[in-house]
Amino acid sequence: MRQLRYSVAASLDGYIAGPNGEFDWIVIDPDIDFEAMYRTFGGLVMGRKSYDVFVATGGAPGLSLPTYVYSRTLPEGERGGVTFVRDAAPHVRALKQEADEKPLWLWGGGDLFRQLAAEGLVDGIEVAIIPVVLGAGIQLMPAPGPRLTLQLRAHRLYEKSGTMFLEYDVRR
Amino acid sequence: MRQLRYSVAASLDGYIAGPNGEFDWIVIDPDIDFEAMYRTFGGLVMGRKSYDVFVATGGAPGLSLPTYVYSRTLPEGERGGVTFVRDAAPHVRALKQEADEKPLWLWGGGDLFRQLAAEGLVDGIEVAIIPVVLGAGIQLMPAPGPRLTLQLRAHRLYEKSGTMFLEYDVRR
Repeated sequence: MRQLRYSVAASLDGYIAGPNGEFDWIVIDPDIDFEAMYRTFGGLVMGRKSYDVFVATGGAPGLSLPTYVYSRTLPEGERGGVTFVRDAAPHVRALKQEADEKPLWLWGGGDLFRQLAAEGLVDGIEVAIIPVVLGAGIQLMPAPGPRLTLQLRAHRLYEKSGTMFLEYDVRR
Repeated sequence: MRQLRYSVAASLDGYIAGPNGEFDWIVIDPDIDFEAMYRTFGGLVMGRKSYDVFVATGGAPGLSLPTYVYSRTLPEGERGGVTFVRDAAPHVRALKQEADEKPLWLWGGGDLFRQLAAEGLVDGIEVAIIPVVLGAGIQLMPAPGPRLTLQLRAHRLYEKSGTMFLEYDVRR
């Protein structure tokens, strides 16, 4: 079955954005190859607020991936190369059955991660730990959420910024 | 000036304990040498609730370090080798002036860390990231707290458990 992996940048205290959605604190290490990162995935799934950030920050660099946005307020259907869907869990469950060896990127945000993790649909978590304590903000998983036991499968230090990239599998 | 370093185990989502203070999720890697860790410090400072955990878990292994516990309810003074103090910030500020090259260990918890960080008294943060997402609990720094910019100075992977130890300096 196709994997779904939650890949985000987070502060050391577990926030993916400031209290008002700020991401000014995310240091972009010059050695992170975002295009190569996008190429490892077969599609993007995200919530509506994350989609707004995705668009505002320029989208996927140099390539276009199938993109699915979950929203309880926007009309369903395909617009501008993006598929809008109301109910995330059944749709993601179906996507995971598709014949594609590349994993799906759960691009964000925390609410969608919590919802899909509670349904047992998240296979991996990849966090770029930015060297900052934010003190407040939007949590990697908004409380209260399910407990997930992980297994570290890889790590990489980006020395120029001190960003530590940690890659985990979710244990069943 | 003597350093004050906050050294804790945390979940990937930034909790140092479960909602009811649980620490059953903290995997103790057999390669972590706690005695050696304690020997790098010249004293322990902690809040009253952390002190209860410190005592319940057997205290410092194989050695006794000057220990300062901050409490707004317990009477001040020395009892059983532990010094109880009401106001943390002025006392820690004085401790940091003492001639001792070994840093002080801010053993916990989050509230004391937040208070001392807000006063600019915390010089370093060392986090052993346990491979778990807790979903809820007591935060590494209870929100809302001050933003701290960090510099990664060392890291060590404990392979048997997948615990990643990250050592940061607080940037001024």
